[in-house]
Amino acid sequence: METKTAPENRIFNLTASERFTQIRNRSVEICRPLETEDYVVQPVVDVSPPKWHLGHTTWFFETFLLQPHFPDYKVFDEQYNFVFNSYYETIGARVIRTDRGNLSRPSVADVFRYREYVDRHMNDFLDSSFFTPELADLVELGLNHEEQHQELLVTDIKYILGHNPLFPAYTTDQVSEKRTEAPSEMISFPEGVYEIGYEGEGFCFDNELGRHKVYLNDFKISTEPVTNREYLEFMNAGGYEDFRHWHAEGWDWVKMTNAQSPLYWHKVDGVWMNYTFNGLQEIDLSDPVCHISFFEASAFASWKGMRLPTEAEWEVASDHFDWGRRWEWTNSAYLPYPGFKKEAGAVGEYNGKFMINQMVLRGASEATPPDHSRKTYRNFFPTNLKWQFTGIRLAK
Amino acid sequence: METKTAPENRIFNLTASERFTQIRNRSVEICRPLETEDYVVQPVVDVSPPKWHLGHTTWFFETFLLQPHFPDYKVFDEQYNFVFNSYYETIGARVIRTDRGNLSRPSVADVFRYREYVDRHMNDFLDSSFFTPELADLVELGLNHEEQHQELLVTDIKYILGHNPLFPAYTTDQVSEKRTEAPSEMISFPEGVYEIGYEGEGFCFDNELGRHKVYLNDFKISTEPVTNREYLEFMNAGGYEDFRHWHAEGWDWVKMTNAQSPLYWHKVDGVWMNYTFNGLQEIDLSDPVCHISFFEASAFASWKGMRLPTEAEWEVASDHFDWGRRWEWTNSAYLPYPGFKKEAGAVGEYNGKFMINQMVLRGASEATPPDHSRKTYRNFFPTNLKWQFTGIRLAK
Amino acid sequence: METKTAPENRIFNLTASERFTQIRNRSVEICRPLETEDYVVQPVVDVSPPKWHLGHTTWFFETFLLQPHFPDYKVFDEQYNFVFNSYYETIGARVIRTDRGNLSRPSVADVFRYREYVDRHMNDFLDSSFFTPELADLVELGLNHEEQHQELLVTDIKYILGHNPLFPAYTTDQVSEKRTEAPSEMISFPEGVYEIGYEGEGFCFDNELGRHKVYLNDFKISTEPVTNREYLEFMNAGGYEDFRHWHAEGWDWVKMTNAQSPLYWHKVDGVWMNYTFNGLQEIDLSDPVCHISFFEASAFASWKGMRLPTEAEWEVASDHFDWGRRWEWTNSAYLPYPGFKKEAGAVGEYNGKFMINQMVLRGASEATPPDHSRKTYRNFFPTNLKWQFTGIRLAK
Amino acid sequence: METKTAPENRIFNLTASERFTQIRNRSVEICRPLETEDYVVQPVVDVSPPKWHLGHTTWFFETFLLQPHFPDYKVFDEQYNFVFNSYYETIGARVIRTDRGNLSRPSVADVFRYREYVDRHMNDFLDSSFFTPELADLVELGLNHEEQHQELLVTDIKYILGHNPLFPAYTTDQVSEKRTEAPSEMISFPEGVYEIGYEGEGFCFDNELGRHKVYLNDFKISTEPVTNREYLEFMNAGGYEDFRHWHAEGWDWVKMTNAQSPLYWHKVDGVWMNYTFNGLQEIDLSDPVCHISFFEASAFASWKGMRLPTEAEWEVASDHFDWGRRWEWTNSAYLPYPGFKKEAGAVGEYNGKFMINQMVLRGASEATPPDHSRKTYRNFFPTNLKWQFTGIRLAK
Repeated sequence: METKTAPENRIFNLTASERFTQIRNRSVEICRPLETEDYVVQPVVDVSPPKWHLGHTTWFFETFLLQPHFPDYKVFDEQYNFVFNSYYETIGARVIRTDRGNLSRPSVADVFRYREYVDRHMNDFLDSSFFTPELADLVELGLNHEEQHQELLVTDIKYILGHNPLFPAYTTDQVSEKRTEAPSEMISFPEGVYEIGYEGEGFCFDNELGRHKVYLNDFKISTEPVTNREYLEFMNAGGYEDFRHWHAEGWDWVKMTNAQSPLYWHKVDGVWMNYTFNGLQEIDLSDPVCHISFFEASAFASWKGMRLPTEAEWEVASDHFDWGRRWEWTNSAYLPYPGFKKEAGAVGEYNGKFMINQMVLRGASEATPPDHSRKTYRNFFPTNLKWQFTGIRLAK
Repeated sequence: METKTAPENRIFNLTASERFTQIRNRSVEICRPLETEDYVVQPVVDVSPPKWHLGHTTWFFETFLLQPHFPDYKVFDEQYNFVFNSYYETIGARVIRTDRGNLSRPSVADVFRYREYVDRHMNDFLDSSFFTPELADLVELGLNHEEQHQELLVTDIKYILGHNPLFPAYTTDQVSEKRTEAPSEMISFPEGVYEIGYEGEGFCFDNELGRHKVYLNDFKISTEPVTNREYLEFMNAGGYEDFRHWHAEGWDWVKMTNAQSPLYWHKVDGVWMNYTFNGLQEIDLSDPVCHISFFEASAFASWKGMRLPTEAEWEVASDHFDWGRRWEWTNSAYLPYPGFKKEAGAVGEYNGKFMINQMVLRGASEATPPDHSRKTYRNFFPTNLKWQFTGIRLAK
Repeated sequence: METKTAPENRIFNLTASERFTQIRNRSVEICRPLETEDYVVQPVVDVSPPKWHLGHTTWFFETFLLQPHFPDYKVFDEQYNFVFNSYYETIGARVIRTDRGNLSRPSVADVFRYREYVDRHMNDFLDSSFFTPELADLVELGLNHEEQHQELLVTDIKYILGHNPLFPAYTTDQVSEKRTEAPSEMISFPEGVYEIGYEGEGFCFDNELGRHKVYLNDFKISTEPVTNREYLEFMNAGGYEDFRHWHAEGWDWVKMTNAQSPLYWHKVDGVWMNYTFNGLQEIDLSDPVCHISFFEASAFASWKGMRLPTEAEWEVASDHFDWGRRWEWTNSAYLPYPGFKKEAGAVGEYNGKFMINQMVLRGASEATPPDHSRKTYRNFFPTNLKWQFTGIRLAK
Repeated sequence: METKTAPENRIFNLTASERFTQIRNRSVEICRPLETEDYVVQPVVDVSPPKWHLGHTTWFFETFLLQPHFPDYKVFDEQYNFVFNSYYETIGARVIRTDRGNLSRPSVADVFRYREYVDRHMNDFLDSSFFTPELADLVELGLNHEEQHQELLVTDIKYILGHNPLFPAYTTDQVSEKRTEAPSEMISFPEGVYEIGYEGEGFCFDNELGRHKVYLNDFKISTEPVTNREYLEFMNAGGYEDFRHWHAEGWDWVKMTNAQSPLYWHKVDGVWMNYTFNGLQEIDLSDPVCHISFFEASAFASWKGMRLPTEAEWEVASDHFDWGRRWEWTNSAYLPYPGFKKEAGAVGEYNGKFMINQMVLRGASEATPPDHSRKTYRNFFPTNLKWQFTGIRLAK
């Protein structure tokens, strides 16, 4: 989920090395409340251990910037390539299959030493004459890559703590998620030719490029995301038991996984509770529903007699409503924009190969790093996953 | 894959009962070369036993026309509903899970008796006053449903015989599939607003309706489908070993299934052979490649430095080339057209529920019944299936 | 499950070819009530299609007797080796993986032609001077092999018809399985050294050989097998819900397969029905319970405060009770007798390789061919299978 | 794998609380070289995280001794029952399925606090008048349970470190495993009645009880375990490619798992290396082969033209050779001794329920705690597992 093309380095009035340090530190901050043990586990295949995220993003800078472009740089540990690069580790002629969650070493302390070592050299590099303008894009990509993993860190930490039977809180700071519920209304857009896709001079990923015209029919879209209150109505109305609202594959998924509610919801003594970063709490009915699969989003929309918007409709309408608390499922398959081209080499080929059997999500979420969202951003996930901060906006 | 909306009955200068008889007889003709044993087996879950197709299409007319609309009609056998309706058969309070391929009964002779009984009553019905104009659409749907299953019969018979180690021929008639290879060229279409979707007065399925505008960028499309010769070049160039041409999910599929060639290709003593309805024969290099998955079609296109067309591009361009020998994979996900509505009731809900995680195929194939193809027809299959008569047309 | 060592040919006052014909014809008789379609299907991996049994037993005589020992014998069809020998069929350099139940060809008529051809040549062979005394053992093995498959034919036919939602009867002859329930009592045997294993001059399999001493403690064994009445008491007492009576692996099996009763039992409108060869009928309470797994047999015994006998106890006691209606699960693992040796070559290696993770059954069943049972016979199956005619005898 | 019956408490000249402390401390000692992260992971289902072992053995004393028998004892943490008791944790009405390796909490520090708390109270208890003679057996069982888990700790730590691509050493102490290879010879035992099973006054598990007579035929047994040198000969002779030496189920296992050597062997640049607690080292040819499955042990014996001993043969002969470096696979299925009775209640039912589809191992290994071995000890594992310190002794 990581590539880009950016016309120029983005400075935010910071030097390159200040900006580098700021973003890199944020990853460490996210992990600060964790116990050492929390860094290690991988409860399901989609969730990576926090220490792996910390190592992998570091490996990116070491491998793509320091090693090829910073003379005399000495790799921190030759073997880390086996650990932080991919699933198949090769040592001499040996190949060992491991899962990330089985790796107790390198230790958390080792990973932090690795980060400090690479960060120190990166700062030297960014202040040196070896950091040429042509490399600015690559640094920017590395930082956006880091920010993507910051979002995954938040998501995965929630999964790790939220699937522990002790339900430990991530923070004891009172994180109020409560808000007044805004009245939702549908806003209308007329039929015609619109333009979508990234334009401008800042950073974007390659899958957003190729600004192009689309023809849209008349449509209406809601100003507010669907709330827990509304989703609970769907549940109470038997939404999970009525096959008519589900795709055939979604209905199989419901039966196989016994899906009955958003992830992290638990019925305790007849009351629906929700695991939050403050621990297990009663459902906040006015909050936007969160942690649902595409199948559930689509079934909810059908039950409402509406539908999910397409990604083009969402992008065209996005200036007219608030977004950013939930990744919003669209009914658009993740496919290339007209003229999309895979770039050459390892860095360039990342987005294209996922363009099948996944659906586009638009917006951003509470887990998204600040300054890492824009209306043209194309997030994507398979239709069965719930562990992201996903929600619903209706259209018709 | 079965529903519709049709403004009026289509007559072809035949009476309704003549047309009914003609189409129904064709199913029987397709099965004529089979041994009794060939009607029974189900080698993989996607392939249904021929006798099931013959029974299921008959059950359609009995259930949706004769039972509700022909007074005094007596059901042939009450228990056939368990066998020809769905996977879960209920007898009294019992539920037995069976697979179609495990059912030795009803026997083939029983199924033919069932067809004769229902056909006889359908002919009486179509000639009676109970056959009102409002029911013409439903009869037409039943006949199109029968034609869809005729295509599946051909496909499934090929799978059953082609996966028998004796490689029995389906027919000893010399079915020449050899043709002169036409020179392929790319034809260009300019950017702009086009219209796609069904228009006219004949029959179509509900997923083709909602003729609507689309905005297309400049594109080029090939006049000829990809041949076995070209596909063999891809294989010989190591196409199945080079991950760069494959979607991530496609690459996993290659490794897991050990895919190495189109279905029905076997390398015998160093020579590529192909199972055809005449038995095992040498590959005909000038023939369009057949029986490939979406993953393979897409990887081939990438290897050629091109891409698959979208379904809109295909439909817009389709008057400018010959099509109909292969179902052509497009790079469009199977999603609803603007304004698509599921109809009420059992008949109406069929197409919508498959609109996820499948790709659209356009055209028709050698297995498609005559008069059952049109340029707006939207066929669809999951990305890993090879048993249909699928091929490739390139675009860029 | 097929090998032997026999000191001399067994004649039964018949010539070799008369005996051959008699046993071979019995296989055909067993299949006489079947429709062609019934010969083809394989509902689960443990069940083979009847036509495969008919072909495989024929292939034995062709491969091990006619081909090597009858000059000028011409093989019926070279390709049948791929079909009737094993799961992996090789044609030239090709390897195709097929399941027996996917093979519509050779047709049933072909298989009967194959049998007639081989039988005709076997009769000529048995009356010829090429049939030397040294080959008598091999013929005897082939006939015992045929009889083992006759039992499997009966078992598999019951599975095929009993898993069809139409529940077709195998025969309309009134096969009364009803009997008066004998009063069960426990007979005692004193501690001491006993001898078990085959002795005598007739045929036996190699796993019965090596008559040897065993030391048995005092034990008691029941004169009667457990009835449906008693098993129903276990069910009604919650036997399937009480983990204390089950092996850990058995308890997992109960939960995974949702086992709740013997195979072929169906609760219809509150009444327990049983599929028999006459169709679906009410449970005969006085009949010995049938079609249960080892796990169920062992759990029942535990619930009764007793245990299953060991195979040595069973054999020592077997002259003192009637047996032969059910294969009786013992608590003995299927392991080699002292001095057991695998014989050389393909014929000789069959029994030994199954001597792990299976349990011994003693006795015989209603499906066992006449004259194919003896008290030293060691049948064996994995602990989870129910499709054999298996029952329970208690010990303590 | 945990129960017993012991006629009296075993003192070793220590007070109960001294002995308790000594054994409990040994568990902590075993873990001393670990990093915090090593305590957390569970690479495969058979391996438990070290912190789980430390918690589970503590939970035993809290649950079975302190809670019921030490007035005013206050449970350390009510929720630990969900974590250290079983796989299904219930919180109020909620049930969450977790795997031990997914649990980052309780932290390692928490688990050590839990141990200290329970140990402190256990010491008070053992010195108090509440510790009555009738409870001595239960304490003894808890200590033997702890020792069993000490062996599992060693085994599991080896698995965790030995499956990390960095191959970290467990200890840098030079643990010489090298020894001079003793000449192996076969010793003979005559046919006759022997006695096996536990006798004496010390502790034993319930599955060893019921000393009883067995009748053994003449047999010979080797004085030495099979070495790496001999096993390598088997590998080099193609032992893993010759189906004739394998059980049918073992052969399937070889093909499915691609087994080619003992666990922890890696061929690096053409040289066989072995992961040991000192890290990756060259194979020590004179060492007894270790970490092989039953299937491999049995295939090796077949290749040698010999067999594995039965557990009765092993026990009868065990005074005549050295044992204790490897758990030695026997060809005896794990089944109850004559007169075996499950005891009532949770403590008593443990051994019986595993008495199916497992094979007995005799002896002890380098991982077995001192004083925790005896010649009547019946260890058992499924036939496919390699992670224990398992080896081979031949018989014939």
